[in-house]
Amino acid sequence: MHELNKSWVLAAFPQGMPSEENWRLEENPIQEPQDGQVLAKAIYLSVDPYMRGRISPKAGYAAGVSVGEVMHGGAVAEVVDSKHTDWAPGDIFETMGFGWQEYALLDASGLNRIEPQDGIPLHAYLSYLGMPGRTAYFALEEVAKIQPGETVVVSAASGAVGQMVGQIVKLKGGRAIAVASSEEKLNWCKQLGYDTGVNYRKESDLTDAIKQACPDGVDVFFDNTAGVIHDAVMRNLKQGARVIVCGTISLADKFEEPDIGERFLRQILVTRATVRGFLVFDYQHRYPEANKQLIQWAQDGLIQFKTDIVQGIESVPSAFLKLLHSQNFGKQVVEIVVN
Amino acid sequence: MHELNKSWVLAAFPQGMPSEENWRLEENPIQEPQDGQVLAKAIYLSVDPYMRGRISPKAGYAAGVSVGEVMHGGAVAEVVDSKHTDWAPGDIFETMGFGWQEYALLDASGLNRIEPQDGIPLHAYLSYLGMPGRTAYFALEEVAKIQPGETVVVSAASGAVGQMVGQIVKLKGGRAIAVASSEEKLNWCKQLGYDTGVNYRKESDLTDAIKQACPDGVDVFFDNTAGVIHDAVMRNLKQGARVIVCGTISLADKFEEPDIGERFLRQILVTRATVRGFLVFDYQHRYPEANKQLIQWAQDGLIQFKTDIVQGIESVPSAFLKLLHSQNFGKQVVEIVVN
Repeated sequence: MHELNKSWVLAAFPQGMPSEENWRLEENPIQEPQDGQVLAKAIYLSVDPYMRGRISPKAGYAAGVSVGEVMHGGAVAEVVDSKHTDWAPGDIFETMGFGWQEYALLDASGLNRIEPQDGIPLHAYLSYLGMPGRTAYFALEEVAKIQPGETVVVSAASGAVGQMVGQIVKLKGGRAIAVASSEEKLNWCKQLGYDTGVNYRKESDLTDAIKQACPDGVDVFFDNTAGVIHDAVMRNLKQGARVIVCGTISLADKFEEPDIGERFLRQILVTRATVRGFLVFDYQHRYPEANKQLIQWAQDGLIQFKTDIVQGIESVPSAFLKLLHSQNFGKQVVEIVVN
Repeated sequence: MHELNKSWVLAAFPQGMPSEENWRLEENPIQEPQDGQVLAKAIYLSVDPYMRGRISPKAGYAAGVSVGEVMHGGAVAEVVDSKHTDWAPGDIFETMGFGWQEYALLDASGLNRIEPQDGIPLHAYLSYLGMPGRTAYFALEEVAKIQPGETVVVSAASGAVGQMVGQIVKLKGGRAIAVASSEEKLNWCKQLGYDTGVNYRKESDLTDAIKQACPDGVDVFFDNTAGVIHDAVMRNLKQGARVIVCGTISLADKFEEPDIGERFLRQILVTRATVRGFLVFDYQHRYPEANKQLIQWAQDGLIQFKTDIVQGIESVPSAFLKLLHSQNFGKQVVEIVVN
């Protein structure tokens, strides 16, 4: 075992689009666990769009990262030392509270145990069996409440949440329309079952491209991006539409400024649309239900999933920045190998 | 009885803010009813903000008025001749489908009979016992679902819908905050029971004024206006807020253009707010429930209401324009006296 822990701390809040200079890699001695704690080493670290909100002085739904503090983030990790009777070295778990680091001292009570299963990679617990999978599940189940035959448009459709949304929509009998940034991503979306797709970087008239893909209008808009995709879909809402505001990654470069553009209050009124902010953490008490369903679908061979894996603690900021620039392909994770 | 019927027809779609030139007064012979029809004369004509949407070539939730067609509008009217067994001369009814005219030939099946009651003026069926009252009732009952102690901000609070929203909020144990365009209107709102008010024309920092009035944030925003009031309230939403998009009267002068300004997707996400377009017509099957409750409250002396009454068919366009300029005080109606 190493004696030193490498961790990324926030060096400065970004001005606009974050860059690698916003974090600093530190090395510190690994501490021993106290009573009730475990010491764990990361196997996979997750980078996710929500992290942009954690490095802003603007209020978010969760407390942000302070300058000098280890960057927040989830992980799949292995216990290496334990001062809690429920946990022993070798045990595997997932937690949202690991941070961008190789080792973490954690309060054992907040950890979600993983029983490794054949055919299910451990990083799946950061994607289709984890937070993104549960996000897709609860947002569709509780907000969209899709009916068979309804048309669902998904932005960032090849991302961690988007891949799952499309597949669940198809399982529920809906029509799924992918919006993504390349033909390669759209082809993958079609393999997942998406009925058709729109490459938002290629279309000169995105509103019309959405209209072509959804000639009868949009029943559900699963919005992971905000920005120009949002605008184009809002102009195509059908009566009774539900818009799930799940992410705003296209605003990553202007997070601290007001987002100026067309507002859609008339469209919302005329279509009686519902626009709703969604955070999976509000459904924490129902995670077992989602976990059970997601694992069942995976075991039944109904879930395909693409993960974009890079290696090493040094790669974490660049992996996160890839995400902000749509340069990842599939759920972005970082594999951590320590001795 | 007159032999001629005066009616306002649409002369031209407005460009921006409507003006009197958009309508033309015509006189035509009164026709006799056919089988199943009644001939009725208006007692009160209603002018309402929704009418701005009917004189736009842009698609709305209902078919618009064509150039040369009688302007759409609701009325309380009296049967003068009937070819339907349920209706006899002297019967009083309310309908959304009368039009800006003295007389109308109407299909008897769409009329809502009024049994005149002591203490209830007939124009009440265009306001607190009519469409605006039902709007307040269903939007609060079905969308806001207010809990005792919750803070509800209401724009156009002294208008037809706003007066009812404040009073129903108080009946349900909520805290009601009026936003209106003058001290006189705010004083009336306080008489209705509103806890406090904000004069949006007087405040240099409207966002801060809303914050002062709602130090713990806004649980429900009943939005009748869009525009700057919307912006100020959106910046003060509380977690789990509900925003009812009921009207957009502040956009009357730029109805055909995109509404450009700050978008609030981050706020919606962070607060998990629900923004929902509301149209009372979607609750038509439940009107009897609302009517019963509203009449009960009125009979119990729980409803106060101010109506702004002008006289004569000639006044209809100017009455409507008063509304668009916030120059009315209370629900605007036009009393029609024909011999």
